[in-house]
Amino acid sequence: MLSGHGDDLYEYGKVKVNFSSNVYGHFDHTGLYAYLSSKMSEVTHYPAPVPSLLEAEVSRSFSLSPEQVMVTNGATEAIYLVAQTFRGAHSTILQPTFSEYADACRMHVHEVTTLKELPVSFLNKGLLWLCNPNNPTGRVVEKGFLTDYVRRHPDIIFVIDASYAPFTLQPLITPVEAVAMPNVIMLHSMTKEYAVPGLRIGYVTACESLLEKVRAHRMPWSVNQMAQDAGHYLFKHRQNYSIDLTSYMYERERVNQLLSQMSGLEVEHSDTHILLCHLMKGKAHELKEYLYSKYGILIRDASNFEGLGEGAFRIAIQSPMENDLLVNALAEFLSSHR
Amino acid sequence: MLSGHGDDLYEYGKVKVNFSSNVYGHFDHTGLYAYLSSKMSEVTHYPAPVPSLLEAEVSRSFSLSPEQVMVTNGATEAIYLVAQTFRGAHSTILQPTFSEYADACRMHVHEVTTLKELPVSFLNKGLLWLCNPNNPTGRVVEKGFLTDYVRRHPDIIFVIDASYAPFTLQPLITPVEAVAMPNVIMLHSMTKEYAVPGLRIGYVTACESLLEKVRAHRMPWSVNQMAQDAGHYLFKHRQNYSIDLTSYMYERERVNQLLSQMSGLEVEHSDTHILLCHLMKGKAHELKEYLYSKYGILIRDASNFEGLGEGAFRIAIQSPMENDLLVNALAEFLSSHR
Repeated sequence: MLSGHGDDLYEYGKVKVNFSSNVYGHFDHTGLYAYLSSKMSEVTHYPAPVPSLLEAEVSRSFSLSPEQVMVTNGATEAIYLVAQTFRGAHSTILQPTFSEYADACRMHVHEVTTLKELPVSFLNKGLLWLCNPNNPTGRVVEKGFLTDYVRRHPDIIFVIDASYAPFTLQPLITPVEAVAMPNVIMLHSMTKEYAVPGLRIGYVTACESLLEKVRAHRMPWSVNQMAQDAGHYLFKHRQNYSIDLTSYMYERERVNQLLSQMSGLEVEHSDTHILLCHLMKGKAHELKEYLYSKYGILIRDASNFEGLGEGAFRIAIQSPMENDLLVNALAEFLSSHR
Repeated sequence: MLSGHGDDLYEYGKVKVNFSSNVYGHFDHTGLYAYLSSKMSEVTHYPAPVPSLLEAEVSRSFSLSPEQVMVTNGATEAIYLVAQTFRGAHSTILQPTFSEYADACRMHVHEVTTLKELPVSFLNKGLLWLCNPNNPTGRVVEKGFLTDYVRRHPDIIFVIDASYAPFTLQPLITPVEAVAMPNVIMLHSMTKEYAVPGLRIGYVTACESLLEKVRAHRMPWSVNQMAQDAGHYLFKHRQNYSIDLTSYMYERERVNQLLSQMSGLEVEHSDTHILLCHLMKGKAHELKEYLYSKYGILIRDASNFEGLGEGAFRIAIQSPMENDLLVNALAEFLSSHR
C-alpha cells in the first residue's frame, strides 16, 4: 500500500475548501444519517456473511441478474479480489492511474506492464486494467473504440474501473452491455457516486462465469452492517443523489480555461470533474503547503502517481465561488514562483 | 466460505431468545450509539487508509508498541491475511473449531491437516491454528502447557485466536506475553468483547517482525470510518463493557448440570459461556426447528463443524430466566423424541 493517497484530509486539521478529494461534496445526506442512526442497534448482530440482499437490489436497479453483481468493501476490495483471482497473471495497466491496481497486482505476483495507451497488439494473455473515466486525468476512452477493442481481444480480461462514471457526459459501456461481454469485469464505487467514502461500499458487475471465479475468493462479513444498510438506503433514494452534470461540466470547463491561461501551468484535457495540472516550475508539494497554510485550500499532490513529475497536482471542481478562491490563490503562487 | 455460520439471526424473523450467537447480549450500547450518530458526517470523508490512530490506542491499552498491533476488518480479515501471508504453508488445525481457519487456508493453498489434540511432535514446519478458548467447545488449553509447547516448537507459528478470551476465568497467554514469543500471532475480536459484530473490528497482536509480514498483505481502507470511530469509543469506555464473569460462569455451570442430567443429551466440558451439546438421538436441525417454531428460541446447529455429528448443537448462556426457558423446552423435545 502506498502512502499519500488522494484524500489525506484526515491529516489536515483546518481545511476550508477541499479540492484534493474526487468525492462530490454537495449532496444532502440528512436522510441517510437519520436512517443509519435509526438502524444503530443492528451493530449488535452479525451482518449477512455475503450482502446478497443488497446485491439483489443493485442487480434489479441495473436490470441485471443477482449472479452478475458482487457487493464489496469499497471498490478497493474488488480490485484486490480480482488481482487475487488471477494470481500470477500478466497485467497491463494504463498509466498514470489509481495506484491500487499496480499494488494489488504486485501483491498477487502479477507480471505488471505499464503503458500510456492501449497497445496495438498484445503479446500475452492476461488482464488489462483501465480506469474509465480515468483518475487522475479525468479522461474517457471513446466508447465505440473501447467496445471494438474489447471484442478484438477475447483472450484479455478487461478490468474497467467505472468509479468515475457518474461524473462525465461522455458515453460509456454500461453494466448491461458489459455483462454481455465475456471478458469484461466492471468495478463501481458507491464512494464516488453517493459521496460516502467513509462507509466503504462498492460493487462489481460481470458475466456470471467470470464473477463466479472472483466471488470464490471473498471472505465473509467484509461489508459491515452500517455499509449494507447505507447501500440499501442509497439505492432506494438514488434520485436524491443526482448531479446536474451539464452545469458541473460547464464549471469544469470555466476553471479549465482560467487555469490554462496562466503561464507556468499546464492543464490536461478532462471529461470529468477533475483536472490534472502540471507546474512548469516548482513542486506540487510546495504549492500544496502554500495553499493550505495561506488559504486553508487542500489540493492533491499528484507527483506520486507512477509516470507523473514533481509538478503534477489534481483538483476536483467545487462550487464556482470556491473554484475562484483556488484560481486566485494559484495565480498568486505562480506569480511569486517565476 | 461455508454457509450456516453461527449467527443466522438475519434469516430468522421472530426470535425471542437467541442462544445461537456467541456474542454477549447484555451490554448497554446507548453511549456508543449516541457517539456514532454524532460522528455520522464523517462518512463523507475517506477513513485513514490504515487505522493507525486506533492501533496506537489499542497498543497503549495493552502496553504494547504500535508495531505490535494491527487493526482489521473483524478478526476474519486477520485470519485471511495470516493465511495469505503464509500462502502454500502446511497448516494444522485443531478441530472442531471455527471453520474460517480451514476456509482461509484452503483459499491460500495451504496443505491442511486437522487434529483433535495438539500433536506430540510435528513432521513439518508450518502453522498451527488454535482457537483458545475454543469455539464451539468453550474449552481452554492449560496456559503452562501451551506456553511450554510453543517454546518447544520454535519452527511452528502458532496462530492463537483469543476472540473468546473475555469469557473465561482460566488463565491465558496475554498479548504482552505473546509478543515476546517470536512464533505467536494472536487474533482478537472486538465483536466478541464489546458485542458489536455488525461493525467488524478485530486486531492482531504479535512481535514486530512477524506482524510486519502480515501487514504487507493488507489492502487500504479495509476498516470503515464507523468501525474506526466505534473502536476509539469502545477502547476509551472499556470499563462499561466488563462482564461479571464469576456469576456468568456460575450460571454456565448451573445450566451445564441441568442439561447433563437429561437422558438423551451429552454436554461437553466448557471453560466459557458456550456449551457444546450432542443429541444421542435425532438431529440438531430438527431440535433447532422445534425450538424456534414452538418457543422462538434460536440455537446453533453445530453439525456443520468439521468433525461433529448431526446431533451437535451449541448454546451461549443467557440470563437465568432465558436459560430456564431453553432447559424446559429441551427437556420437552427430548421426552417426545425417545
